[in-house]
Amino acid sequence: MENIASIFKSHLEPKEVYKGGKNLPSSSKKIYKLSSNENPLGASPKAVSALKLAAETIDIYPDQTDIRLREALVQDFNNELTVNQFICGNSGSEIIDMLLRAFINEGDEVIYSNPCFLPYSVFSRWYGAKQIDIPLTNPNYDLDVEGILAAITNKTKVIFLTSPNNPTGTYIPKTVLDEFLNHIPKNIIVVFDEVYRHFADAKDYITALPYVKKGHNIIAINSFSKTYGLAGQRIGYCYTTTILANYIRQIQKPFLLPSTSIEAAIGALKDQIFINKTVELVKEGRHFLAESFTSLGIRFWPTQGNFFIIDPPLTEMKFTDRLMKEGIMVRPVSQFGAPGKVRITIGTQEANKALIEALKKIKPE
Amino acid sequence: MENIASIFKSHLEPKEVYKGGKNLPSSSKKIYKLSSNENPLGASPKAVSALKLAAETIDIYPDQTDIRLREALVQDFNNELTVNQFICGNSGSEIIDMLLRAFINEGDEVIYSNPCFLPYSVFSRWYGAKQIDIPLTNPNYDLDVEGILAAITNKTKVIFLTSPNNPTGTYIPKTVLDEFLNHIPKNIIVVFDEVYRHFADAKDYITALPYVKKGHNIIAINSFSKTYGLAGQRIGYCYTTTILANYIRQIQKPFLLPSTSIEAAIGALKDQIFINKTVELVKEGRHFLAESFTSLGIRFWPTQGNFFIIDPPLTEMKFTDRLMKEGIMVRPVSQFGAPGKVRITIGTQEANKALIEALKKIKPE
Repeated sequence: MENIASIFKSHLEPKEVYKGGKNLPSSSKKIYKLSSNENPLGASPKAVSALKLAAETIDIYPDQTDIRLREALVQDFNNELTVNQFICGNSGSEIIDMLLRAFINEGDEVIYSNPCFLPYSVFSRWYGAKQIDIPLTNPNYDLDVEGILAAITNKTKVIFLTSPNNPTGTYIPKTVLDEFLNHIPKNIIVVFDEVYRHFADAKDYITALPYVKKGHNIIAINSFSKTYGLAGQRIGYCYTTTILANYIRQIQKPFLLPSTSIEAAIGALKDQIFINKTVELVKEGRHFLAESFTSLGIRFWPTQGNFFIIDPPLTEMKFTDRLMKEGIMVRPVSQFGAPGKVRITIGTQEANKALIEALKKIKPE
Repeated sequence: MENIASIFKSHLEPKEVYKGGKNLPSSSKKIYKLSSNENPLGASPKAVSALKLAAETIDIYPDQTDIRLREALVQDFNNELTVNQFICGNSGSEIIDMLLRAFINEGDEVIYSNPCFLPYSVFSRWYGAKQIDIPLTNPNYDLDVEGILAAITNKTKVIFLTSPNNPTGTYIPKTVLDEFLNHIPKNIIVVFDEVYRHFADAKDYITALPYVKKGHNIIAINSFSKTYGLAGQRIGYCYTTTILANYIRQIQKPFLLPSTSIEAAIGALKDQIFINKTVELVKEGRHFLAESFTSLGIRFWPTQGNFFIIDPPLTEMKFTDRLMKEGIMVRPVSQFGAPGKVRITIGTQEANKALIEALKKIKPE
């Protein structure tokens, strides 16, 4: 009992931690950062001015709860959900962490499908969950519905689905999701990560909203980092059934969001002009890049996100370094379970053109 | 296995959640908010300008880690600690939550001493800890060292100490802390909450710093909400031994702090003039209020914080309401384990005088 080692949890033995995309190196040369799926138009101007106004009273505690932001979200969802169905936090990642904390007991099983967002596995480990990877099926990165259903045991607690998926850009069509959810036992939580949903325009793309309304045990993860351009401010939310939300809310701290975050998020939700411009820019860039990749003979995957993954003509590290020399920062995604692939954020038209010009210079070795 | 109830943890059954102090009601009348221990001078101006500058690039992900803030903290601690000994988070409360998450297994025991900061018990419950309250001893609210030592079992994992203590303003003298720490088994974590440390001036007041340097299993909680005036921004940190810090860091999310928080905190640490002014104002106000309470015959406790608790001449709710009518907002602290007492933040000299004038009008019933 005097042994200090006994205070540590074995599943928290030091291990490599998740690292996000790199920050821009300081350099005098112009660099296009196409590595972190940020908004090429910057942040919503309404969000920035609301944030600066809130900075004037930063000495005062924020609202005790996120209620004003949840009210703004109800409006944003055209009253299809109630304030009791939303939970806000410091980033979509924090919401994922909070859900796992609320539901996972040591030894429970979590299922996800590589390539996917790394925190699903990293955060699952924090709570001693057994991690089951049922990879997306090659070559199209489709969800392996049969595989996941077959992997479910009486220890399965959480299944992660992502649509559009990071880093592949693929999505889960409505018929697939319907079938999947109809086969899931009621004691399993489906975490449906839809942080890129605004960029999806496929006819059979669907969010978690209708399933939440039908009472499925599904929790939809959303973020202010992408469409609203607030990656630096760390704001996310989820929506789900009232019963699940009320349970998760038990582990919410008081004063959970900085006042600057609350005001910036409320400002961003009202900025429909900025949202429309952002979505428009991404769609144009998606079309332009898909055509350009095709004419250059670069293999890419059709995407519903604000990014592509491609099969680069060099090894992923060589390719990334080479593009950096051309002033373009992209992200290798082996770490996400997509060995050899590189993820490229859709940028401004200027950045997209610079990317294509740079690609023209890079020949296979 | 199809039963939805099976997904919920029994120790997370819905229960009343911790509510912090109230926000200021909207009113045309001038109100002195002396209820939340905020900084009466506002926020550090250097912090506010750093925050506004960061607002210009809020679309970009923040630093992946808190390393730059930790470097600034090392400087603030005159290189007595290394960057590996600090961990930052979104508020001191988040740090407390994170520590419990890192160390508590269901059924472990946590000891704290009421009256104290409510999150110790609320957050402990989230992880299924058994909560042991060894109250401060009346009438002086001293730490019950014997009582705590006697309560230790082989299930004890965390002991909370607070100095200066919220809401009593009392502190743990060096000799008491020395004796206490010498009797604690090595497999117990002492969480030492020192968020009010800048305001302490008792000769035998001591922080956790020398004990951390000696290698005790002690973790010191600090906040940017008080001295630096950044309550609205939610920034806190802890420092501890490298071995404990490296373990806790395992459960830190990437991009854990908003860029605005990182910059505001670094700005605040550099603003020595503001810190000095704040501490000076609190000490003057403490002296003035202690004298005034004495001459009014109001029982109070000597305080090392930026607040007092008093025995009000009316019931705590009646007294609070009555003061509110006089334009002064204070906080009843039954919820903290101090029934009948009211906590009053030390304000500007103007606010302190208004408080005393108001108190003169309130007679016992």
